[in-house]
Amino acid sequence: MSGNTYGKLFTVTTAGESHGPALVAIVDGCPPGLDISLADLQHDLDRRKPGTSRHTTQRQEPDEVEILSGVFEGRTTGCSIGLLIRNTDQKSKDYSAIKDLFRPAHADYTYHHKYGERDYRGGGRSSARETAMRVAAGAIAKKFLATQGIRVRGYMSQLGPIEIPFKTWDSVEDNAFFSPDPAKVPELEAYMDQLRRDQDSVGAKITVVAEGVMPGLGEPIFDRLDAELAHALMSINAVKGVEIGAGFASVAQRGTEHRDELTPQGFLSNNAGGILGGISSGQPIVAHLALKPTSSITTPGRSIDIDGNPVEVITKGRHDPCVGIRATPIAEAMMAIVLMDHLLRHRAQNGDVKVNTPVLGQL
Amino acid sequence: MSGNTYGKLFTVTTAGESHGPALVAIVDGCPPGLDISLADLQHDLDRRKPGTSRHTTQRQEPDEVEILSGVFEGRTTGCSIGLLIRNTDQKSKDYSAIKDLFRPAHADYTYHHKYGERDYRGGGRSSARETAMRVAAGAIAKKFLATQGIRVRGYMSQLGPIEIPFKTWDSVEDNAFFSPDPAKVPELEAYMDQLRRDQDSVGAKITVVAEGVMPGLGEPIFDRLDAELAHALMSINAVKGVEIGAGFASVAQRGTEHRDELTPQGFLSNNAGGILGGISSGQPIVAHLALKPTSSITTPGRSIDIDGNPVEVITKGRHDPCVGIRATPIAEAMMAIVLMDHLLRHRAQNGDVKVNTPVLGQL
Amino acid sequence: MSGNTYGKLFTVTTAGESHGPALVAIVDGCPPGLDISLADLQHDLDRRKPGTSRHTTQRQEPDEVEILSGVFEGRTTGCSIGLLIRNTDQKSKDYSAIKDLFRPAHADYTYHHKYGERDYRGGGRSSARETAMRVAAGAIAKKFLATQGIRVRGYMSQLGPIEIPFKTWDSVEDNAFFSPDPAKVPELEAYMDQLRRDQDSVGAKITVVAEGVMPGLGEPIFDRLDAELAHALMSINAVKGVEIGAGFASVAQRGTEHRDELTPQGFLSNNAGGILGGISSGQPIVAHLALKPTSSITTPGRSIDIDGNPVEVITKGRHDPCVGIRATPIAEAMMAIVLMDHLLRHRAQNGDVKVNTPVLGQL
Amino acid sequence: MSGNTYGKLFTVTTAGESHGPALVAIVDGCPPGLDISLADLQHDLDRRKPGTSRHTTQRQEPDEVEILSGVFEGRTTGCSIGLLIRNTDQKSKDYSAIKDLFRPAHADYTYHHKYGERDYRGGGRSSARETAMRVAAGAIAKKFLATQGIRVRGYMSQLGPIEIPFKTWDSVEDNAFFSPDPAKVPELEAYMDQLRRDQDSVGAKITVVAEGVMPGLGEPIFDRLDAELAHALMSINAVKGVEIGAGFASVAQRGTEHRDELTPQGFLSNNAGGILGGISSGQPIVAHLALKPTSSITTPGRSIDIDGNPVEVITKGRHDPCVGIRATPIAEAMMAIVLMDHLLRHRAQNGDVKVNTPVLGQL
Repeated sequence: MSGNTYGKLFTVTTAGESHGPALVAIVDGCPPGLDISLADLQHDLDRRKPGTSRHTTQRQEPDEVEILSGVFEGRTTGCSIGLLIRNTDQKSKDYSAIKDLFRPAHADYTYHHKYGERDYRGGGRSSARETAMRVAAGAIAKKFLATQGIRVRGYMSQLGPIEIPFKTWDSVEDNAFFSPDPAKVPELEAYMDQLRRDQDSVGAKITVVAEGVMPGLGEPIFDRLDAELAHALMSINAVKGVEIGAGFASVAQRGTEHRDELTPQGFLSNNAGGILGGISSGQPIVAHLALKPTSSITTPGRSIDIDGNPVEVITKGRHDPCVGIRATPIAEAMMAIVLMDHLLRHRAQNGDVKVNTPVLGQL
Repeated sequence: MSGNTYGKLFTVTTAGESHGPALVAIVDGCPPGLDISLADLQHDLDRRKPGTSRHTTQRQEPDEVEILSGVFEGRTTGCSIGLLIRNTDQKSKDYSAIKDLFRPAHADYTYHHKYGERDYRGGGRSSARETAMRVAAGAIAKKFLATQGIRVRGYMSQLGPIEIPFKTWDSVEDNAFFSPDPAKVPELEAYMDQLRRDQDSVGAKITVVAEGVMPGLGEPIFDRLDAELAHALMSINAVKGVEIGAGFASVAQRGTEHRDELTPQGFLSNNAGGILGGISSGQPIVAHLALKPTSSITTPGRSIDIDGNPVEVITKGRHDPCVGIRATPIAEAMMAIVLMDHLLRHRAQNGDVKVNTPVLGQL
Repeated sequence: MSGNTYGKLFTVTTAGESHGPALVAIVDGCPPGLDISLADLQHDLDRRKPGTSRHTTQRQEPDEVEILSGVFEGRTTGCSIGLLIRNTDQKSKDYSAIKDLFRPAHADYTYHHKYGERDYRGGGRSSARETAMRVAAGAIAKKFLATQGIRVRGYMSQLGPIEIPFKTWDSVEDNAFFSPDPAKVPELEAYMDQLRRDQDSVGAKITVVAEGVMPGLGEPIFDRLDAELAHALMSINAVKGVEIGAGFASVAQRGTEHRDELTPQGFLSNNAGGILGGISSGQPIVAHLALKPTSSITTPGRSIDIDGNPVEVITKGRHDPCVGIRATPIAEAMMAIVLMDHLLRHRAQNGDVKVNTPVLGQL
Repeated sequence: MSGNTYGKLFTVTTAGESHGPALVAIVDGCPPGLDISLADLQHDLDRRKPGTSRHTTQRQEPDEVEILSGVFEGRTTGCSIGLLIRNTDQKSKDYSAIKDLFRPAHADYTYHHKYGERDYRGGGRSSARETAMRVAAGAIAKKFLATQGIRVRGYMSQLGPIEIPFKTWDSVEDNAFFSPDPAKVPELEAYMDQLRRDQDSVGAKITVVAEGVMPGLGEPIFDRLDAELAHALMSINAVKGVEIGAGFASVAQRGTEHRDELTPQGFLSNNAGGILGGISSGQPIVAHLALKPTSSITTPGRSIDIDGNPVEVITKGRHDPCVGIRATPIAEAMMAIVLMDHLLRHRAQNGDVKVNTPVLGQL
């Protein structure tokens, strides 16, 4: 199957390069009768789009989406939904100097070897620009999930060396970092300002949480919900690690510590991150992802050109010093797409299942 | 698509419960003409099978595989390969006491809510017993990859709190832990002996490495090689986290530190773990996975029964105190399956691509 | 995806050669809680199996199926169902003479060119023997469809030049031909007896009908219900044509004649074969399939060997003079599998849809 | 998987309604380095587009396609190709009268029951307008296949009661019917003129042929080449039957007549239509498809409205009296897409296979 398609029943297929005419997506499998407006999609696109603070790239893209099909009189029809975003701020000349060489830690070298051909302008297809379409598709998934009582939200949990403790969802949308701790924001700003002066970049950690997920989502044994989340989140540009629940902390845990005991009042902990045996338990789904530092920095680095000669590379252009800052809406979108796909898969097979056992929440 | 199938071109479909008559797999898409013998499959099955040291479950399963089809006169025919392993050591009475309650941190609760029905004997389909078939299928993938110069190997990099530095591949097969440091083995044994006395379990970290992988494997944007590895590795029982290369350490890294510079003599580092933009770079592919502590412990835990009443659960039976100990061959198998699938996908689309740029190794 | 897998949600994956140790199938996606017994599967296997009349091959295969997994205490668990049929009547020596040449109209020549390797014994994977597993899987689908009020049945509508008008379902199971007209049976028997004396074979036409199918099944635009039925039915050995409803007769029809008018009492005709715009209408689904004459005949034919030299071929062994005679249960199985898959796909996306418009039957 | 996606490796995903803003497609999996120009796509779009003779709908759509991605400097990059066609001639008022009733033999009734919602304007998604995107995608496939020596062409073989014998490919593009017999054109024109006066419509039969196909394409057992062709061709609007080679004529054939004997000089006949055991033989691939008469006719017909009340329907608007007339490029496109997908699938698994047996052509 196509590497540019995600999902089995709720599928998202995308196309488009950073500096081509447009990004396009086809979202298929959405149940009919869902209220969808441009504003629904635009809200998350605006949260992701560049240039909204001094801490992200100054490239200006309005990222205005057009719905081409699949929505009639404000409701989905059940037919495939076409989405289009025109690229408007294409400064191709910024990139012409790097046509014949490979920027370190970029996809230049691997695309070249894989395809022989590549659109070198701004990274072409390997640019994080494609994630705009994930966000648009994810907004449709979020809208549907909301009708089922499910809410997907994310926040930044670490910026470079600065850990950000979760304090409150209320703070997340009020700062440029999606920080859940308003008190941390000045420190984050100072860090980023220094980073720009250093002409360097840094990594980040994002946490995504889904609340209200019913028990039963996930398809053993290979399409476990955690496996699919790992797939979807790792497919985001710059992600190098994914954890579910306690994640790598589980390594040093003992069984008596890790296991989330059940009581009639609810689960007593959530080391599992809401997933047991690959199936949602009814607890909040919790995933963490590690994003590497942006490769596009103006500090010179060693590389080679397409003939194998050594070169020194300085990546100019307008880049994010921390791609993690704009990653929260993207991670939410991917989690929402996975959950929606699995909700449909689950009800296909198990729509008739009824059990008397109460559904536990988390204490 | 089926949750019990992995892969797009090289596909592995499995069935079978812990205490049912047999495990079965159908492996499809293997190129014809590959030499395959029972011994090839049995070698890795024996590495995974229980009861080979005092540190794993004492359940005895010979795990003898039968090839039902797809191999003729010692070579694959290109047709689907059927594999069968009979279950022989089924002590179902060990499990009947837990029929109507949910063991904490097990899949009991989620299978019950998802399907209404479940084979409660030994975890049924949610038991790690199914991974025997992954190992058998992975052995076929390894055999093919070897013909392409690719070698997949793994080792234990942490047991509970004990970090195990990589010293030498030569040690890995010589101890019960797949430890790459022979000097660490006595410490690991002492730790496990104490753990059994504590009636507890513990987590582990496994590292898997593929060497000899050509540049070009991986299908952007959703089926990136790292995304598929994350999917495949997270689908293994008990896995709670997956890292590629520097993984979560990338969060605190700066761009100047993380980026792997290129020289005509090779890459200068491998923070990327051999994958750039979702495509293999020719460097070793490196993945780490976190396994949680076994849930099946004899220390009592709180839970509920199927009517929602509180109960105290003690999981008797014969269980691994650290599932990570037998996980190395499974992780290798899943990485091999992913690489083989992507090798076929890559040559389908790009079999004719030729570039003059030299392929870099790692310095 | 695997060529040996059919279906998207209800998937059937098979393996096994004519003269190998066994046939095997993995059926995935079946809803849990379905009563399934060996007798359910055996009933249709017995309808397909050879050697039950003098008009089919005298090869004796008991075709006894074993359920390896996915069924617990008589009910499906929702996990993948493993099925096994051992081959018992393998007279491989019958085939050794044709190892290095290509029987005309067989798959020998194409398998040889595709794979280089082939199991030449009895056609290996290309033998119609594999259809036993389709029938076993189809029996599960039929059992589920019955719980939804859907019944799939087939009959022979033409044997060579002899057209068989539909008279009554009651006759179909009472003769070796699945003839719906008991009065035609003597003519069919005489024709077959002469055919054997002629050392020749002949084609047949089979009709399959599904009654009780609710409106709504089928996924535009590519996975229309008729397109999937065409795929599934054309995938049966020897099938050279598929029609839905009026089929090729539509070519000469006028719109005023072809269109099935609707009245509050029901549709006035069924030229559509129960499918409009690729979606079931609630009328009976009607498909016809053309099967070519068996290629395995003892009348000599011209061919070449693997070096390209001319040879004369006589196919000995025990073959069906008309493969269509045993094709009815296979065609039913494939239609049942398609309908079940689409029923699950439909309820995944549209499980909540409610309309007030009455569902029309057929007058 | 999405019902709006076709293919496994070369995938075509489409969206768009008859009277919405645009049609859109994403074509994925195309090998890189293929020369593609707008003219390549436009050529076949122009062959399909309406309004080029008095025998088709007078709706005027320029069907100008825009390439949004995946092509850089005139060559494919291996990344997903976005295609866009704006709808320009949307006379929605023509359709408002039929909003609440079901046109006989249309998809109105089934879409209504399936989705609850529908875009009733011009048939919405069920309109044959979507086939424009199949033609655009097929043009890419044709371009690639041409580089492999494969040519896909079609013609009309029957119009209503008038059979059209194959005379010459030279004639096909010189008349409005794709008739391979120039002498038949006046008869076809006269028939169509009378049909319009009768306010009626009629069916047609199209034949598609692929020459130069290497042996080996097709994936047993379910994804046989003939099964996939049946799927793809039956998915075209109005198709009610598909034949491969001798098709339904096989029913009355004897084995001695049907089998295509092989000689060192080539196959002696082609009843198989170029496919044996589901795999291409190297002979021309030949498929026939039956298209039903257009449902949109101005002769009144009986139907019901959405409340179940009886109504009389006259379908006004601008419609094709024989949809078969414009179907030839669509059928070619679908065959080309199938062949390309299977060529990639074949070389993925069997790219290394070499045999010494000569490839036979057809005598």
